[in-house]
Amino acid sequence: MIHPPAEIGASIDQIETPALVIDLDALDRNIAKMAGHASAAGVRLRPHAKTHKSPEIARRQIAHGAIGQCVQKVGEAEALVRGGINNILVSNEVVGERKLRRLAALAGDATIALCFDAPEQVDAMSRAARDLGVEVGGLVEIDVGAGRCGIAPGEAAATLAKRIADSPHLTFRGLQAYHGRAQHLATYQERAQAIASAVDAVRDTLDALAPANLACEIIGGAGTGTFAIEAASGVYNELQTGSYVFMDTEYASITAPDGGGYREFEHSLFVLASVMSVAGPEHVVVDAGLKSLSAEKGVPWVWNREGVEAIGISDEHTKLGFKSESSRPRLGEPIWLIPSHCDPTVNLHDWYVGVRHGRVEALWPIAARGASI
Amino acid sequence: MIHPPAEIGASIDQIETPALVIDLDALDRNIAKMAGHASAAGVRLRPHAKTHKSPEIARRQIAHGAIGQCVQKVGEAEALVRGGINNILVSNEVVGERKLRRLAALAGDATIALCFDAPEQVDAMSRAARDLGVEVGGLVEIDVGAGRCGIAPGEAAATLAKRIADSPHLTFRGLQAYHGRAQHLATYQERAQAIASAVDAVRDTLDALAPANLACEIIGGAGTGTFAIEAASGVYNELQTGSYVFMDTEYASITAPDGGGYREFEHSLFVLASVMSVAGPEHVVVDAGLKSLSAEKGVPWVWNREGVEAIGISDEHTKLGFKSESSRPRLGEPIWLIPSHCDPTVNLHDWYVGVRHGRVEALWPIAARGASI
Repeated sequence: MIHPPAEIGASIDQIETPALVIDLDALDRNIAKMAGHASAAGVRLRPHAKTHKSPEIARRQIAHGAIGQCVQKVGEAEALVRGGINNILVSNEVVGERKLRRLAALAGDATIALCFDAPEQVDAMSRAARDLGVEVGGLVEIDVGAGRCGIAPGEAAATLAKRIADSPHLTFRGLQAYHGRAQHLATYQERAQAIASAVDAVRDTLDALAPANLACEIIGGAGTGTFAIEAASGVYNELQTGSYVFMDTEYASITAPDGGGYREFEHSLFVLASVMSVAGPEHVVVDAGLKSLSAEKGVPWVWNREGVEAIGISDEHTKLGFKSESSRPRLGEPIWLIPSHCDPTVNLHDWYVGVRHGRVEALWPIAARGASI
Repeated sequence: MIHPPAEIGASIDQIETPALVIDLDALDRNIAKMAGHASAAGVRLRPHAKTHKSPEIARRQIAHGAIGQCVQKVGEAEALVRGGINNILVSNEVVGERKLRRLAALAGDATIALCFDAPEQVDAMSRAARDLGVEVGGLVEIDVGAGRCGIAPGEAAATLAKRIADSPHLTFRGLQAYHGRAQHLATYQERAQAIASAVDAVRDTLDALAPANLACEIIGGAGTGTFAIEAASGVYNELQTGSYVFMDTEYASITAPDGGGYREFEHSLFVLASVMSVAGPEHVVVDAGLKSLSAEKGVPWVWNREGVEAIGISDEHTKLGFKSESSRPRLGEPIWLIPSHCDPTVNLHDWYVGVRHGRVEALWPIAARGASI
């Protein structure tokens, strides 16, 4: 692990670059705002730790009423349980004996659930839970339109739910009904339509479950782009939003219900870079590239620096263009970049540098960085 | 840091996924082949550690005659010096007092050089070297057509070279003349044309340097896509190739001089994944996505699995399509993926799993992972 890029109490000018910086005031406001939305809608909030990978941020979400955390990977669950989080849903399938045993081992210290879309996996998890002497919760993941993982809604899902309910050391806990593809659809109307059909898929599955009298404690889904729609559906009862804590340019590029920009949450996550070359006649170069910023959704935005924008990115460099000589960045100048995609950007860094009022207030290790295993 | 995904001596079926796996035989052959090319051309080889970030691989390159290593970042230099590498060129500008002092501190244990494209930076490095009581080498980076960092060739470069030569605690060592943009131009003819103008830029600069009698010990550049051209130029004397040790789909997509595929080096780097969902009617899903594979150059290729190809990628998932039911991958099946871009892919992982004859032979920590600082 790389040394932290700053010291507690230092001024923001002393942060070594590139660094992953959180505006703690903006983070706090985002956490409180989403908690308020969930509470007003009468649904539970189980934020997704795939975004932040940090027990410190998880604890702040839980302090605002979140009931626990979602993760995608067993390694993320391990990092959170080590950090004191005791209620975790793996919102994903887990394949492989060794991984299932690692997950079962956590169920001694925390309430653990995971998703299934295949009967073999139900049986494998049941055996691992038996071997470790624990109880593990199971959800059926249904494909509500994302076209990735998940079994077909309706009868097929109900059959799998019964298998979970009938398996020793497993408890059937509900449905995973996340529509990932819907989150970044450009207009509110497109997103509302996608979630309307997800709701139909959930209702079909609930109808199929009714004869077996299998109750769904959890009907989970929703992301930062659609959560208000699921929350108002009367069907979903847990929101799994992740990116709202940070925001990124991809979410900032979708539109709100009124057709304007989506400004529900603030940008709280930045890659702080320094200008390292001013030799070019029409561009300058900063010291953060693809190894500090995920760019498959485009180059980062430049924050609060009039007339300057990113025009290219490579492994360790981002090129900035400028409107006129008067806006030309100077050698060594700090540049605040907003990542296009927050989750994989966080996964590149070992430390969060939390800043408030121009000072470094927190250094949080990104405990689940690289925990894709 | 995440636990290693395998144990030494285990069979390849026991590797936990996703894992970054090296075919050690292919790696060895790539290392030997590039060493042979450099030696035959009568130029030195200083491979680029930005690709592998590993003292273990650096040592293997040096055992085959490489004179040292290139890096892009001070953090990478620190990781290599700690791993016993004693001759390092930072093929990049370094900005910031703290970074310059960290670099100077390494010059007590290793021969260190870095690049300049601004006079202020020459002065700042000279001060840091004086404060630490060391000598540091300096190269002038010239922009040979890449349009990123680097000063204009000719007189401007010569003026900067004189400033280095005249600065206490600095030694002028030569020119950095890397044409990054040329590496992935599709045809050999395009690459040859780009390097021909890079050679002209170097010659102009040598002409401008001649009156001052400043010799260039190093005239460095070249990457995996163009090295044969620089090697034959009669001007370049050090090759800085990086990706040849691993290859990736981007390099495998350029053409050779005869117009056929570029097959000079073998694919030795893979992300090993497992099929985690087979619920979809026309696709399956593996457990490695953007957090295990850099995808800004496209989805990975599937290795040695007839009729199966990657059709989409998200944070923790890659979707695979298949030609017919008979080629449908089964739940839990291992799938070997070739990354589209090796350098940022390596930067996502904590461990190399080296395999030979179906067994795990090496577990190498990726010592400079995340060392962009």
